[in-house]
Amino acid sequence: MALSPETEHPVQAFGYAASDTSGTLSPFKFSRRATGDNDVRFQVLYCGVCHSDLHMVKNEWGMTRYPIVPGHEIVGKVTEVGSSVEKFKVGDLVGVGCLVGSCLSCEQCDDHSENNCAKQVQTYAFNNVDGSITYGGYADSMVADQHFVLRWPENLPLDSGAPLLCAGITTYSPLRYHGLDKPGTRVGVVGLGGLGHVAVKMAKAFGAHVTVISTSESKKQEALEKLGADEFLVSSDADQMQAATGTLHGIIDTVSALHSVVPLLGLLKANGKLIMVGAPEKPLELPVFPLIMGRKVLAGSNIGGLKETQEMLDFAAQHNITADVEVIPVDYVNTAMERLVKSDVRYRFVIDVANTLKTE
Amino acid sequence: MALSPETEHPVQAFGYAASDTSGTLSPFKFSRRATGDNDVRFQVLYCGVCHSDLHMVKNEWGMTRYPIVPGHEIVGKVTEVGSSVEKFKVGDLVGVGCLVGSCLSCEQCDDHSENNCAKQVQTYAFNNVDGSITYGGYADSMVADQHFVLRWPENLPLDSGAPLLCAGITTYSPLRYHGLDKPGTRVGVVGLGGLGHVAVKMAKAFGAHVTVISTSESKKQEALEKLGADEFLVSSDADQMQAATGTLHGIIDTVSALHSVVPLLGLLKANGKLIMVGAPEKPLELPVFPLIMGRKVLAGSNIGGLKETQEMLDFAAQHNITADVEVIPVDYVNTAMERLVKSDVRYRFVIDVANTLKTE
Repeated sequence: MALSPETEHPVQAFGYAASDTSGTLSPFKFSRRATGDNDVRFQVLYCGVCHSDLHMVKNEWGMTRYPIVPGHEIVGKVTEVGSSVEKFKVGDLVGVGCLVGSCLSCEQCDDHSENNCAKQVQTYAFNNVDGSITYGGYADSMVADQHFVLRWPENLPLDSGAPLLCAGITTYSPLRYHGLDKPGTRVGVVGLGGLGHVAVKMAKAFGAHVTVISTSESKKQEALEKLGADEFLVSSDADQMQAATGTLHGIIDTVSALHSVVPLLGLLKANGKLIMVGAPEKPLELPVFPLIMGRKVLAGSNIGGLKETQEMLDFAAQHNITADVEVIPVDYVNTAMERLVKSDVRYRFVIDVANTLKTE
Repeated sequence: MALSPETEHPVQAFGYAASDTSGTLSPFKFSRRATGDNDVRFQVLYCGVCHSDLHMVKNEWGMTRYPIVPGHEIVGKVTEVGSSVEKFKVGDLVGVGCLVGSCLSCEQCDDHSENNCAKQVQTYAFNNVDGSITYGGYADSMVADQHFVLRWPENLPLDSGAPLLCAGITTYSPLRYHGLDKPGTRVGVVGLGGLGHVAVKMAKAFGAHVTVISTSESKKQEALEKLGADEFLVSSDADQMQAATGTLHGIIDTVSALHSVVPLLGLLKANGKLIMVGAPEKPLELPVFPLIMGRKVLAGSNIGGLKETQEMLDFAAQHNITADVEVIPVDYVNTAMERLVKSDVRYRFVIDVANTLKTE
């Protein structure tokens, strides 16, 4: 008989979990493995609420294993390290993002792209190598192999820095990989949510000229004045879109609702790149001509490898990049999820885990 | 009143044209401009029959201007050069591909990507700068600005080399641009027609390991033994496709019939590139997840610039690459078009213009 989440591992843990597709999160006793030789155990201080958490608690991507403890933007303080761990010591500030495992021996892992390893282990609701389910950061403690633990830069805030572990690397990585990280590059950002607002900050820090593309005027002032974007395009305004034809080297598209990419392809210069980091549930309708004319590229991108994630955190600390966050107590998380559905947050909820999650 | 095709320009010409969406080609008297200072005039010797010609004569892409004289794989012998032409002299063998004009002053033209210039002038059925329609190579003579005229390499056959001016550059350019031109690269080629069979030869000449992906077994022997492909995959065979998951660095997809690209994305390694050079008339249905997982790219590519086209011709001559052709008399062209609809040609028709096109 399978052991229960509470008894399958030797170390007790406590967090918030959903147990069915309602996605409602409730207090949840479970357990974590003992600290292995290569493991880092830490007290969770803050955990960001990513839009993926919302999809996953409701099983909207069809791959959720219940009970699910979400959370993959986890910042904490080390409480114990395994005998082979030299990178970290008790008291260090650390982060864990979307990954807690990969094979570390394939072509992708050798290339520092653990995020593309076929045997990757995601931080929550995923099959761990021992067959148990992984549990994320809406919890009092966390344990992970040191390879998947990030060193937290000294001057990076813990709460507003937490979302960088997903939203930061998700936008930083494609900007770097696709050569959109150079001064003078003209970069578009579609959607001004958790991912989009960080994409604007990252692209600006690279020296790019940044255009925010949004369905409505409502975020114009904030995009230009607060986030530092250079231009703002309303995608439903045909004249504005026409005037911007062929002006961008690349676009980071963060929108996960189904939308037409054809107008976005029209904004690209020849050799331009439209990079999808949001994943609409339904297939896009994609005519091929707009790709062929001008040798354009439609690409996908999914977080980044561990080496690059560390590089991103250091870059963010150096350039004072954080997410704009609303810090919440853990018992507000279901309300936060409801607000997230309505995009009623600017721009990321972060749970103050250490101060609000109390064992009953 | 607009002048007729026969009298609008000072130099008489004769060829084959379609005058309506039936696409039927008939003998056609028209005219070409006088040889300008930068122009090269030449007698057409051979002209390939591209699948685009078929789409265009029937206005299947909705942009045809009638009467249309098709043909953009044109090889000929220079008969006259303008006063500013130093690159060519009377008697030289030359080629003209899909382009006869561009602005030569934009970012794209400066980057030797005249094929991406917004003001490009295509070789036939296109608005020329003077407002007249361009006429292609199913004709006794041709005139073009020297910038758009290629030097024909000494040892490259005229008939079987002609299709390289479209099929050659269309496959060579993306292999180069997307880094699929290195020994050890694993390249897939989808569809074994006019473009596909040249793609196999180009990729092999670059030293790639080439897998042909086809809907049926029927071309297996020819692909492996005649064209030199290393592997052959039947796309309808789920077991074969499953076994080949994640094995290719890139795929050149030459199929212009609507087809699912999802199984092709599955064949790619992480960071793999699926490059469409055929243009299905209807939009693809494209789920985004298969792009995001593995940072894959769906790209389009459309011929190449003039500098690269010359480089491709020289590369082809050096590596003895030609198209496999069936040389036909010009009065066979309507039958050839019918056979092309049924893919009944291995792999390209080439019209022997000089020996078979006779002024009535």
